[in-house]
Amino acid sequence: MDALGRKRWAIAEGYIPSESSLSDRTLISHETACILNVTDRDAHVTVTIFFANREPVGPYRLTVAARRTLHLRFNDLEEPQPVPRDTDYASVFESDVPIVVQHTRMDSRRAEIALLSTMAYAAE
Amino acid sequence: MDALGRKRWAIAEGYIPSESSLSDRTLISHETACILNVTDRDAHVTVTIFFANREPVGPYRLTVAARRTLHLRFNDLEEPQPVPRDTDYASVFESDVPIVVQHTRMDSRRAEIALLSTMAYAAE
Amino acid sequence: MDALGRKRWAIAEGYIPSESSLSDRTLISHETACILNVTDRDAHVTVTIFFANREPVGPYRLTVAARRTLHLRFNDLEEPQPVPRDTDYASVFESDVPIVVQHTRMDSRRAEIALLSTMAYAAE
Amino acid sequence: MDALGRKRWAIAEGYIPSESSLSDRTLISHETACILNVTDRDAHVTVTIFFANREPVGPYRLTVAARRTLHLRFNDLEEPQPVPRDTDYASVFESDVPIVVQHTRMDSRRAEIALLSTMAYAAE
Repeated sequence: MDALGRKRWAIAEGYIPSESSLSDRTLISHETACILNVTDRDAHVTVTIFFANREPVGPYRLTVAARRTLHLRFNDLEEPQPVPRDTDYASVFESDVPIVVQHTRMDSRRAEIALLSTMAYAAE
Repeated sequence: MDALGRKRWAIAEGYIPSESSLSDRTLISHETACILNVTDRDAHVTVTIFFANREPVGPYRLTVAARRTLHLRFNDLEEPQPVPRDTDYASVFESDVPIVVQHTRMDSRRAEIALLSTMAYAAE
Repeated sequence: MDALGRKRWAIAEGYIPSESSLSDRTLISHETACILNVTDRDAHVTVTIFFANREPVGPYRLTVAARRTLHLRFNDLEEPQPVPRDTDYASVFESDVPIVVQHTRMDSRRAEIALLSTMAYAAE
Repeated sequence: MDALGRKRWAIAEGYIPSESSLSDRTLISHETACILNVTDRDAHVTVTIFFANREPVGPYRLTVAARRTLHLRFNDLEEPQPVPRDTDYASVFESDVPIVVQHTRMDSRRAEIALLSTMAYAAE
């Protein structure tokens, strides 16, 4: 399929609650960056995490295979260091092929879940 | 009305929970792609579904009549195959006339519903 | 302030639940188009409502005064006819000066509320 | 990192409920503008608040340091005056370096929370 998307994306929101009322993996409080690569080449993506009061952390490195989507949980990032909970952050995605990035949060601190989602900001 | 929108759109998020606490059709967990065609020509749209670990599936074919909106439930797609539940996916829409695409999910796994929505990504 | 926004906008989602568990006006199930006019001229806006199975309805006419925001409830539209409940629709906004349009729904069919919001699609 | 974003942004939605069922600061009803500055220069940002029935208020002045994100709570704005509760408003952000702005609301009037988020509108 013809390339679709951009090579740089930003998500200004970021906040993973440390608490969850629910223990099922799919219902634990989490944030996701959904990445779509429609091209026939693997996308090599680096993620940089920005904070309110300290220097950015990164790059986190990941690959989105050709013709695949990766729903990346920020909760699962480990290298170079985990994303702290209960902390404001933001993120930038840089890829070697065009991708599409969408941001979603599930908040299950209370007994019922709340959801938010938005397409990320695509840089020119 | 003058054409409005683009011919290619992408939604990077996609996840239909298999569970619902509510049985009313309007309250069952579902995902929707709301498509608007303001032109005076029918829009012939193909949808391709992308996954994390296998080749894309499609095309799904649908028509959005001239001057109509179609709120497509991914839950209802049947040909070439249903969209699996509890599975990460993403989608691309390609139309022969300009359309506008917006993505919405209702999650009713818990007793109360949660909603998310975002305009899809419009390709250049 | 310098003009900001576009003159044509579209919202592909649209659905007003007829039910509400809550009776306070601010908590009744409703959909809103939030319109911002930062210019020094009044914005004369026409709204057209699109449906799945019948011809579009409109124009609905409204004015957003210079340097003002109008949070328009679709529930309150009366002329040329009310927006039907429990019905899929979509909307197009056309203005004589640049505006910004954002779409929000509050769903209070259940005892707890659910919210969604997205910036509308800005036509070129 | 190379500049990313725009210098003018708008959020047409704005509404801070005066009520909250929860008293924890993170769970009180609030609205946030998440601002990301990836550049190596501090961003000097002015915010103007627009209303339905009176003249805009501002500028509110804030700085987003180089390589930092600021998750600004509208609830916390004090000078030139607090943002009124239970009141429709909208906002415009103007910066001297490119930034990215995302809008989020947490509504905790009921016992469970509801969330919405969208990327703000980036002016040309």
